[in-house]
Amino acid sequence: MRMTTRVLTGITTSGTPHLGNYVGAVRPAIIASHAGDTESFFFLADLHSLIKAQEPDRTQRSTLEIAATWLAAGLEPDKVWFYRQSDIPEISELTWFLTCVASKGILNRAHAYKAAVDKNRADGEDDDAAVTGGLFMYPVLMAADILLFNAHKVPVGRDQVQHIEMARDFGQRFNHVYGRDYFVLPEAAVDDNVATLPGLDGRKMSKSYGNTIPLFAKPSELKKLIFSILTDSRAPGEPKDTAGSPLFQLYQAFATPEQTQDFAQAYADGIGWGDAKQQLFELVDGQVAPLRERYEALIARPDDIEDILRDGAARLRRQYATPFIGELRQAVGLRNLAEQKAVAKPAASKAALPQFKQYREKDGRFYFKLLDSDGALLIQSQGLETPKLAGELIAVLKQAEHGDALQSSEFTLEVEVPRVLQALARLREAAA
Amino acid sequence: MRMTTRVLTGITTSGTPHLGNYVGAVRPAIIASHAGDTESFFFLADLHSLIKAQEPDRTQRSTLEIAATWLAAGLEPDKVWFYRQSDIPEISELTWFLTCVASKGILNRAHAYKAAVDKNRADGEDDDAAVTGGLFMYPVLMAADILLFNAHKVPVGRDQVQHIEMARDFGQRFNHVYGRDYFVLPEAAVDDNVATLPGLDGRKMSKSYGNTIPLFAKPSELKKLIFSILTDSRAPGEPKDTAGSPLFQLYQAFATPEQTQDFAQAYADGIGWGDAKQQLFELVDGQVAPLRERYEALIARPDDIEDILRDGAARLRRQYATPFIGELRQAVGLRNLAEQKAVAKPAASKAALPQFKQYREKDGRFYFKLLDSDGALLIQSQGLETPKLAGELIAVLKQAEHGDALQSSEFTLEVEVPRVLQALARLREAAA
Repeated sequence: MRMTTRVLTGITTSGTPHLGNYVGAVRPAIIASHAGDTESFFFLADLHSLIKAQEPDRTQRSTLEIAATWLAAGLEPDKVWFYRQSDIPEISELTWFLTCVASKGILNRAHAYKAAVDKNRADGEDDDAAVTGGLFMYPVLMAADILLFNAHKVPVGRDQVQHIEMARDFGQRFNHVYGRDYFVLPEAAVDDNVATLPGLDGRKMSKSYGNTIPLFAKPSELKKLIFSILTDSRAPGEPKDTAGSPLFQLYQAFATPEQTQDFAQAYADGIGWGDAKQQLFELVDGQVAPLRERYEALIARPDDIEDILRDGAARLRRQYATPFIGELRQAVGLRNLAEQKAVAKPAASKAALPQFKQYREKDGRFYFKLLDSDGALLIQSQGLETPKLAGELIAVLKQAEHGDALQSSEFTLEVEVPRVLQALARLREAAA
Repeated sequence: MRMTTRVLTGITTSGTPHLGNYVGAVRPAIIASHAGDTESFFFLADLHSLIKAQEPDRTQRSTLEIAATWLAAGLEPDKVWFYRQSDIPEISELTWFLTCVASKGILNRAHAYKAAVDKNRADGEDDDAAVTGGLFMYPVLMAADILLFNAHKVPVGRDQVQHIEMARDFGQRFNHVYGRDYFVLPEAAVDDNVATLPGLDGRKMSKSYGNTIPLFAKPSELKKLIFSILTDSRAPGEPKDTAGSPLFQLYQAFATPEQTQDFAQAYADGIGWGDAKQQLFELVDGQVAPLRERYEALIARPDDIEDILRDGAARLRRQYATPFIGELRQAVGLRNLAEQKAVAKPAASKAALPQFKQYREKDGRFYFKLLDSDGALLIQSQGLETPKLAGELIAVLKQAEHGDALQSSEFTLEVEVPRVLQALARLREAAA
C-alpha cells in the first residue's frame, strides 16, 4: 500500500570529489532520485567525517566542495531532502537511544573495526591501539541517520551491507524493547552494476591510492592527468586490448553504447595511445564542462549553499525529525512530568509483584525471564527448545526456597541469590 | 584568579529515593551548594538511566520523584542550575565529538564494563554477552556532561574516580587534537567521610539488596521498617555494642554529636531494642517530616516541576551550552560554509605538501608523524627518548625510496607503502 519509497544516501565530507565519485555515486544517485515514487534524502555526513578528519579547515572546505558538486551535478534541493547531518541534532540524540539497545557483541564484528584490529595484530600492537570510540560506534551513528527518517532503502556498496544489517538489528531491538514498531527496518540496495572507475595507475580510483582525477580539474589539468594514465607500450597501428585497459573503462563510463563501440573499433584498428587519450579527454571534458561551470558559480557563493543546507535541515526537522524524536522520547520514558501515566508503585498493588515473562526471540527459541517489581532483571533464561520446557523451569523456580534450586545451565541469575529468593517468596505469598 | 568553582552533580533517575541516598548524596550536596564561591550544577541523568531502565513509565515516574526529592530537600533552583540531561541536546552532540577522540583502549578498562565481562566469563558466556553499547560508552556521555559546562569539581564516590579520569583524558585529547584548551580538566572530589548508611539487614542500604527505607515512606511505614532493622538478641538491660550496630549508625547519621553521645550511653546502659528503635524513628521522622510535607506538595503539582526543569535547561543553554557548542563546532570544522578560511588546496601550493610534525606528549616522550597534504596520517612514531632521535629518523625517512627503508620498530605506517613513498617523493621534489 505504500506509495513512496524513502531512499537515503550519505555523502562523506572528506577530500575533493573525483571522477570515480561522480560515476560511482553522484550520477547514479541523482538519476535514481528522479524516479516518481521515490522520496530522496541526501545528507552530508559531517559527523562521520570527524572520525578520521581532524583538520577542521579541511573539513569545512570539503563540505563546501562536496555540497557544490552535488548541486552542480543536478541535485534539486527543492525536490529532494538535502541537508547536513550536524544540522539535525535529533540524529545525535537518537544515536544515544540506539547505543543503549545496541549489542556490543555485534559492534565487535563490524568490518571496519575488525580490520583495524587485524592491522594492529599484524603490527604486534594491542588490539585497540589507536582505535577511537568513533571508529567503533560508527555503525550506531549510521543507524540513527537511517532510522530517524525511516528510510526504506539505502544504496550502498557491498562492503556497507553489514552496516545496514546492524541498523536493522538496532531498530528491531528498539522496537522489541519498547513494544511497538517505531522504526521501519531499512534494506540495503546494492547495485553491482555501478561502475568502479580505474584511476591513473589502473587500480580503483581512490583518494587513498593517490591516483584520482579531480572531477572539477581545470581542462588543462584534466588533460594532463588523462595523458598520464597508465597504458601498455604498443605502438600506433598495433591493435590494442580493451580488456584491462583503464583508458577504455574510463571512456565507457562516459560514453553512449555507440560511442563505446566506435572506441572499441578504434582499439582494434590500432589507434595510438595519444589519440585515444585525446578522445577520452574530449569526451569527459564535454560532459564535465557544464557541471564545472555551475560548480564554479556555486562555490563562489558559499553563503547560498549554506542557506540551501540550513533551509533543507529546518524543513526536514519540522516535517520528520522533531515530531519523531518526540515520539521516541515518549517511547523511552523521557517525558513531560506533568503527563504521568499511572505507575504501580512497588508493593502497592498486585501489578507491582515480581513477574515471569515468556517470549520468543527471532532465533526461534523460547525464553523466559523473572523481573522484580521495579522491573529489574533477576533471572534470564537461555534459548529453550520448547515453550513447555520454559513453563516447567518456571514452575520449579516458583517453588524455590534455597539457593541450590537456582543452579541451572538453562538460566542465569542477574542479581544475588538472596534477592531472587526474596522475589520468589513474594510471588508465593501473593499467590497464597 | 578564578573566583567561582563550578561543581557538577549528576543524579541517577532510577528507583525511589531512600534514606541512604539522602544522607550520602542529597543532604551533603545541597549543603555544599551553599558555599559562597561555588556555582552548582545538578542534573537528572535521564539519558544515563536509559542504559538500564527500559521501563518507560517507571523512568518518567522516577524522574518526577527524584526531582521532587531534591527540591523538597532544599535545592534552590534559582540559585543553582537544576536541569534534566535530556533537555540539553548539546550534551548528545558533544558526546559524539568526544567519542571521536576517545581511545577505545581506555573504554575497555572501565570498571563497570570489566565487571560485566568478568561476570560473563564466570558464567561461561561470551565476554560481551548482554553488554550494550550504552554500558560501554557511558564514560563518554559522562565526560560530555562534565566538559560541556567546564566543571572544575565533580563530587563522586571512590568507585567513580576512574570516570572522572576518563573525562580528563577525553578532554585533554580533544584539546590536543584541536589545538587549544577548549575544556577545563575536571577533578574528582571524593569525600571519604560521607556516611554509607546501613540498610535493614546491616549491609549497605541499596536498592539492589532490597534493604532500603524509602525517604518519604509514610510515618507508619517508616516506623514498621525501622522496627524491622536487624539487631542482635541481647535483652533489655544488657549493655549493647555500638560498633557494628546498623541501628546506631542510622541514628548517628541524623543526630547531633550530643544526641549521638547520649544514644551511645543508652546502649551502654542496656536500652532495649524496642526503645532504641522508637528513638531512631522519632529522630528520623522529626527531620524527614517537613521534607515529606514539601515533597507531597511538590509531587502533587508535576507541571510546576516540569516548568522548573525546563526553565533551568533553557537558561543554562542560553548561558553556557549553546554558545560553547558553537565554539566546539567551530573547533572541529562544522562551520558556516560562508565563513571559509583560506585552505591550501592539495598540490596548489607549498603548504599542501606532506609534512613531518614533531611534538612531545604528556608521557614526556618525543614523537613525530608524517601527514599527507590532505592531512591524512601516513606515519606515526612510537614515543622516543630524545628529540634528536626523532630528527634522525625523519632524516632517514626523507631519503627513503623503497619499502624496506620503512621497516622500523620506532614508527608505524598507517597506510600502504606506495602511498608513503609517493608522499616522500613529493617532499623531495619540492625540496629540490
